[in-house]
This record gives sequence, structure tokens and C-alpha cells, in this order.
Amino acid sequence: MKCDSAGLQVLSREECMHLLATSPIGRIVFTDRALPAVQPVNFHLRGEDIVIRTTTGSKLAAATRRTVVAFEADDFDPDTRTGWSVTVVGHARAVDDPAEIAGLAALPLLPWAPGARDHFIVIVAEQVSGRRVHPG
Amino acid sequence: MKCDSAGLQVLSREECMHLLATSPIGRIVFTDRALPAVQPVNFHLRGEDIVIRTTTGSKLAAATRRTVVAFEADDFDPDTRTGWSVTVVGHARAVDDPAEIAGLAALPLLPWAPGARDHFIVIVAEQVSGRRVHPG
Repeated sequence: MKCDSAGLQVLSREECMHLLATSPIGRIVFTDRALPAVQPVNFHLRGEDIVIRTTTGSKLAAATRRTVVAFEADDFDPDTRTGWSVTVVGHARAVDDPAEIAGLAALPLLPWAPGARDHFIVIVAEQVSGRRVHPG
Repeated sequence: MKCDSAGLQVLSREECMHLLATSPIGRIVFTDRALPAVQPVNFHLRGEDIVIRTTTGSKLAAATRRTVVAFEADDFDPDTRTGWSVTVVGHARAVDDPAEIAGLAALPLLPWAPGARDHFIVIVAEQVSGRRVHPG
């Protein structure tokens, strides 16, 4: 078992992708008016791409157009003090092609909040890192 | 009930602080070598200050010294598609004063990972925002 300097188990890219696929919610990390910003979103993993559905005029849509973002998912159990986290860093892009939008709209990715959400953001998993914490 | 343009309920600062106090884990959002970075941490809420315990030489310790960070906590139920998230933005500072370190070391804030963690980071809650999602 490979551990980092903080004593956390280092997960392989394959393990990270497997864990990401089990998580209904992740957090997209970006910059909003020069300040760090974070927003939880539900998502779908299409291969190694993270697909997010939002509204066209949203702050998230504006802030993630052609930029590098981080995306994080985790699952921790406070009782046993165990759990994992996975972070992906990569370029985000707004999907503009109607054929690709039609394909993404058919994914099992339903908005949680009310209102139309026909704007898709795809994050390409360029850097993938993950850690697992075991009891200290 | 006040809602934002995305149809999410807007939480008051008081509600946000109450929810933060119920959460054992949050995510600190910062910049690491000009890239967005995010790391889950356990934390303690001391008044409205977020207290985090880490190792002296950690990336987190280096990256959050005298800078503005975001801190996010949330709780979602994928079955009912409901939940909340709270985000704090504020200045982070490393605690250097021995008396303050002694006070923080007495808090109910135990590291989850193995190893000594005697470096404390305090985030001052300058901007606080929160949202609750109800079924769409």
C-alpha cells in the first residue's frame, strides 16, 4: 500500500475512476471574480469525462468556459474515521455542438433543482489523484 | 422562502453557521501552483472561525498561508434529491502564537490520519452563502 507524506493511502487512477463512478455528487472548483469558488453538482461519468448539466446563464456556466477547473468527490464515515476523496483537474468546456448536446441530454443525468438545464459542461480528466484515510 | 435564479433556496448566514456546525467534514479550496485545488478536511467551528489541523510541512499549510480560501460543506441525499451546501470565503492564517496553539490543541478536533498534526489554520468567515435544494 503506497502512502503519501500525510499517511494517506494513494489511490491509482483506475481506483479513482471507479470511486468517482459510485458518487452521485461532486464539487466543481473554479475562480469567480478572482476568488476561489466551489459548487456542488450532480454529474455523470462518460468514460473519463465528467459531464455536468446546468443553466445557460448560470455563474457556473460563465466561470467554467474554456478554463482549468478542479472537480472533487468524496465519501467519509465520521464514525469509523475512514473514507476516500478523488480530485480531477482538467480543462472544462461548454458543449456547443447540437449533436453532442442531444447525446448528452440522453444520459442518465437529471437536474436535482427545478427549471430547465440544457447547458452541458464537460471536464476532461487530465490530472487524477485520490487518497484513502484509514484510522490513525 | 427566498430562492436564487437557479431555483435553490437561499440560506441565511445564521442557518449556514448552524449547518456548518453539524458537519464533520468540509473541503478547503485554494490555489496550488496556479491551479485550482481542493482538499477535504475535518474541522471545528470556533464561533464563526473554521479551525483546521494539519502537518507543518503540508501542501495545505504552505498554500493557505496568508491567502483567501473557500471552504465548503454539504449534505445531500441522492434518494430524495434534497440537501444543502454552505460556502465560506475568507482569509486563512497559520496560527503562530504558542498560547493560541495551546488553546486550539484543546479543542475537540482530532486528526483522522496518522501522524502528528500540530499546525493549525484558521479561516475567518467573511462571505458566507448557502443553498438548499428541494425536489425539482
